[in-house]
Amino acid sequence: MKIVKARAVDGPDKPFRAAEITRRDLDLYDVLIEIKFAGICHSDIHTAHSEWGRTKYPLVPGHEIAGVVADVGEAVTKYKVGDRVGVGCMVDSCGECENCQKGEEQYCLNGNVSTYGGIDKYGEITQGGYSTHIVVQENFVLRIPDNIDFDVAAPLLCAGITTYSPLNHWKIGPGKKVAVIGLGGLGHMAVQIAHAMGAEVTVLSQTLNKKEDGLALGADHYYATKDPETFKKLARSFDFILNTVSAKIDLNAYLSLLTLDGTMVNVGAPAEPLAVNVFSLIGHRRSFAGSLIGGIRETQEMLDFCSEHNITPKIEVISADQIDEAYDRVLASDVKYRFVIDVSTM
Amino acid sequence: MKIVKARAVDGPDKPFRAAEITRRDLDLYDVLIEIKFAGICHSDIHTAHSEWGRTKYPLVPGHEIAGVVADVGEAVTKYKVGDRVGVGCMVDSCGECENCQKGEEQYCLNGNVSTYGGIDKYGEITQGGYSTHIVVQENFVLRIPDNIDFDVAAPLLCAGITTYSPLNHWKIGPGKKVAVIGLGGLGHMAVQIAHAMGAEVTVLSQTLNKKEDGLALGADHYYATKDPETFKKLARSFDFILNTVSAKIDLNAYLSLLTLDGTMVNVGAPAEPLAVNVFSLIGHRRSFAGSLIGGIRETQEMLDFCSEHNITPKIEVISADQIDEAYDRVLASDVKYRFVIDVSTM
Repeated sequence: MKIVKARAVDGPDKPFRAAEITRRDLDLYDVLIEIKFAGICHSDIHTAHSEWGRTKYPLVPGHEIAGVVADVGEAVTKYKVGDRVGVGCMVDSCGECENCQKGEEQYCLNGNVSTYGGIDKYGEITQGGYSTHIVVQENFVLRIPDNIDFDVAAPLLCAGITTYSPLNHWKIGPGKKVAVIGLGGLGHMAVQIAHAMGAEVTVLSQTLNKKEDGLALGADHYYATKDPETFKKLARSFDFILNTVSAKIDLNAYLSLLTLDGTMVNVGAPAEPLAVNVFSLIGHRRSFAGSLIGGIRETQEMLDFCSEHNITPKIEVISADQIDEAYDRVLASDVKYRFVIDVSTM
Repeated sequence: MKIVKARAVDGPDKPFRAAEITRRDLDLYDVLIEIKFAGICHSDIHTAHSEWGRTKYPLVPGHEIAGVVADVGEAVTKYKVGDRVGVGCMVDSCGECENCQKGEEQYCLNGNVSTYGGIDKYGEITQGGYSTHIVVQENFVLRIPDNIDFDVAAPLLCAGITTYSPLNHWKIGPGKKVAVIGLGGLGHMAVQIAHAMGAEVTVLSQTLNKKEDGLALGADHYYATKDPETFKKLARSFDFILNTVSAKIDLNAYLSLLTLDGTMVNVGAPAEPLAVNVFSLIGHRRSFAGSLIGGIRETQEMLDFCSEHNITPKIEVISADQIDEAYDRVLASDVKYRFVIDVSTM
């Protein structure tokens, strides 16, 4: 076992503190990663605050991990010391169920192992990327293309794949009109990816505050949802709407923006159910769907796609001492567009 | 103008009465149909009771119409006197919008003309099939195959296409596991059609009362939804669920029965919104959708499909004097499985 530095939280209202945690000795197929940067995802905050089920403390969050291979297990063939790698939201899955067999490990029927707060096959509670090192079996390690720096690579492992996967699954491409609800950590990735896929992209944000950024990221249009005219003007406009906002929204108002056979996909979920007027769906054979991160194969595909199209998140790098402040700022929507922890400050 | 016999209702709480209504002189492309049988659809009841918007009275409902061509306009080429024909829920549409151009007239962006209670291009309020004759332009007239009797043909024009269309659109076929919620007028058609398409079909009904019928219609399995074990046992079982029930249901319980990428489609709609737990969708990339009848081309395809596979509704033929009683029995779910009015009794 290896003792490594980390940042941990001890309860829903507690601040982060410096901690030492253990990482297991390398098993046959394990890779030891020296973490360079770790992104801060809204999920980290929900979990740190024990808002999604009961969190086991102390908790080391972080599932947007970028770093370098520092050591490999005896049977590892995919990676060698020095390789540039990343880890996302999962570190293992059963590998045998029909969903794993399809490469959709995120939907593992036996439950995949979350990067933090999960129980791994050794019976240990997993700890995430706010740490100097992590041990992950090679099948759940991704290769970071050379032209993507570590700091901007980290958010791709969750924000990137979470938006790429539904856009890819629903076959977004030239001729498709796509709306992205929310221009935050996920939304600003969705805009870039949908644009690179060839779609006509519209941002639907509460206000026009970030319009300039949205257009620079590749959006063709930008509308304020606080303006009721927006919903009249854009009625039946979109083939696809990606909702990156977890807050409770007026679902039927957004569904009315879909054209015949249009689909709206949520990648976040409000804690309370949403009210859906079934007539909104029937009238134009619309669908409302959900999507969860993406599989490992698709995550590699997303990294390669971002490399090819020079897509990276806009980030603000912070030191390990600034995590609490960053959480407060995320909750206040005061981030453009992702905080990334410089792990060298840990 | 031609004066014809009909059954009309004068208000939400009024009984049906014998009436005389006018049918327009034949325009160039019009077909005069001598109606033989007219099915009673739950929509008729909603409209007669003014439950869907404000109904204009007197109202002659009926959009499941089967009969014989009695006369044709000068320019009609598709039909001739004596042809066996049907009319469904629409009698016209703009013909020019993108949805009409796709043959999806039911989603006409300028609003199609309902068979009853709509406003036609002459500015007249349309009156439906509880009548001895109707005039419809040829593009909205369907051909009834010779091996389908008029009485059982009538319900195909709404109950048949409403269930065929989503099963067809979502590509149901061999290898697909399909559940049908409700074994009523629509449900008993859905079971037969899905079975003929090659799917493995399960009926989800409140009780097992109609199990024998369900299996005889082609269902492979039949479960009672009043039994909570049903939802445990069938978790993640179905690729596709067709909900034919308009009553408010526990949507999340049914969504939990869908497998990865499964879709649940409503063809009926409760008056109140349904609560959807977005986690139910995200966890297995599930979709919740709606579907409305079907286009004219697809309706003809459905009739031909039913002809080929010997699919007909189970009906109870009534006389024109029994409409009120039939409505009461539909509301009490006391019909196996569709009432059809013998128009010769009118």
